[in-house]
Amino acid sequence: MKEMKKIINSPQDVVPEMVDGLVRSYPEYLKQIPETEAVVRSDQASMKGKVGLVSGGGSGHEPTHAGFVGKGMLSAAVCGQVFTSPTPDQIYAAIKAVNQGKGVFLVIKNYSGDVMNFEMARDMAEMDGIAVKEIIVDDDIAVENSLYTQGKRGVAGTVLMHKLLGAAADQGASLDELETLAKKALPHISTIAVALSAATVPEVGKPGFELADDEIEYGVGIHSEPGYRREKIKPSKELVAELLSKIDEVQHLDATHQYALLINGMGATPLMEQYIFSHDVLNKLAEKNITPVFTKVGNYMTSIDMAGISLTIFELAEQKWLEYLNYPVATVAW
Amino acid sequence: MKEMKKIINSPQDVVPEMVDGLVRSYPEYLKQIPETEAVVRSDQASMKGKVGLVSGGGSGHEPTHAGFVGKGMLSAAVCGQVFTSPTPDQIYAAIKAVNQGKGVFLVIKNYSGDVMNFEMARDMAEMDGIAVKEIIVDDDIAVENSLYTQGKRGVAGTVLMHKLLGAAADQGASLDELETLAKKALPHISTIAVALSAATVPEVGKPGFELADDEIEYGVGIHSEPGYRREKIKPSKELVAELLSKIDEVQHLDATHQYALLINGMGATPLMEQYIFSHDVLNKLAEKNITPVFTKVGNYMTSIDMAGISLTIFELAEQKWLEYLNYPVATVAW
Repeated sequence: MKEMKKIINSPQDVVPEMVDGLVRSYPEYLKQIPETEAVVRSDQASMKGKVGLVSGGGSGHEPTHAGFVGKGMLSAAVCGQVFTSPTPDQIYAAIKAVNQGKGVFLVIKNYSGDVMNFEMARDMAEMDGIAVKEIIVDDDIAVENSLYTQGKRGVAGTVLMHKLLGAAADQGASLDELETLAKKALPHISTIAVALSAATVPEVGKPGFELADDEIEYGVGIHSEPGYRREKIKPSKELVAELLSKIDEVQHLDATHQYALLINGMGATPLMEQYIFSHDVLNKLAEKNITPVFTKVGNYMTSIDMAGISLTIFELAEQKWLEYLNYPVATVAW
Repeated sequence: MKEMKKIINSPQDVVPEMVDGLVRSYPEYLKQIPETEAVVRSDQASMKGKVGLVSGGGSGHEPTHAGFVGKGMLSAAVCGQVFTSPTPDQIYAAIKAVNQGKGVFLVIKNYSGDVMNFEMARDMAEMDGIAVKEIIVDDDIAVENSLYTQGKRGVAGTVLMHKLLGAAADQGASLDELETLAKKALPHISTIAVALSAATVPEVGKPGFELADDEIEYGVGIHSEPGYRREKIKPSKELVAELLSKIDEVQHLDATHQYALLINGMGATPLMEQYIFSHDVLNKLAEKNITPVFTKVGNYMTSIDMAGISLTIFELAEQKWLEYLNYPVATVAW
């Protein structure tokens, strides 16, 4: 087992130092709520009279979620310990900080800890008279039920949900309208990943699982949760064929529909590989006469230093959704 | 020695497939010049009547350079084979493609192959009556002369040069004005890196050098060129102290000046570590009462899958330079 080799100070200081570094690097977008690891827009004026949009979860998925805080996207993000849900009081602090009297909408990834803590914070807010609604994102089609999860996991598609809801909120959508939009879009977002190596949580000091030097695992989660099959590494186009066939089973990809594509590096995967993977995805979709109308390639929902990649397909069932994806934002990472 | 484990098809197809994947993922910004690995803005109208700005070099540094092609930044980028200069005919094709009669300015990283090939392309263009000027970027202060280099190497600071010149060109600066700006800014840009592991060139199949599991190397280049010292890995704040002291020797950091800061991941370094490093840089600068007026943290000038980080300090000797850094752009990666 390899020693941990990381640019950190001490494992227990990872989250506070990281959040501090991020916020102080980008004061034009972000500020920290005192005595929390929650981050809100520094451009408070852009939230005036609008529904607040709050997300968050365990750290280790940078730039998610704090990198998506800013005008046109999230109002706040709450950063838990690495791979650990933030506590209800921190989430509640974020809800209060962004509440403008129009209510607050929560984007929660489907992990037991996150769901429990966000809903506890929701209860606290409602007792204070703040209207709160939520969506629980479960876009990972790889496996049902997993470590920390009942049902499917919430992964990279969450970033598309942030984008959609952020644009709608910025355009003045009500709390109910955001809920309707989120529920309508969610089943059209499907993600699946392949891992070449596991993440090393700093406090643990060794990778979450071991793969042989020539081995990959399909369907791995963003916390090193097990996937559905291990095999020898294959050329990119065969990885694409496998992952896309799984999405096709769920989405029934069809040239009469419009699609957005998100290709996501897991933290240690060079853009070189991500662009090659994208080349193969676009070729494979072209065989079905599909050309995505929107594509993003890069590190959006990472798993610390995992080598691997995820593929998200979002069927744009409504024209408005494409406008939301293209809506201008002011964030660190979109 | 570990086996190469990459999401690719075959090593010789890496560059064409990567460029194709990038361009087809982002048709709103990029298009490829037929029969080349050169990429130009798809928004040709934004170049009208302006000096063209062309950069490029070996591939393996993604998103550099093609990710910085777009309105307000580069007009074109030429992608060589991995860690290998593009050929003069490809560079010449890019110069011709962006020439609007106002001349073309070249941003060249200081490597013998790049300098030779870009200058050969310049000669070809000049014989065709296209006025061409250039800057050779050599911002890496770690070592004098190196593999492939006479003098200092051109590294992450090149991206700041793209940004500066791109903003000025978009505002209508002449070829001479761009040259003056580039020459004036260059000595104020200093970069230095630390590596935790080396890059693996796909055609080579093994890392460019070996470091022990607990070892780092200061001053490594973006093609795995040797640095100036190896030692046991240290806490982030000690890495920062070492690198910043080297920059201080050159720049004489001083609270009466304004600085921009670029913290750059080398490809396999998670943002978690980059933000912690940033936290430590900002703290160390604060000891000198310096708060940078502009900061960027992320993967800008990578070295394939190297784990490591570089620190660039840019002294903003003119107020205009900060405006250039903040000038809006439409690119994949800025």
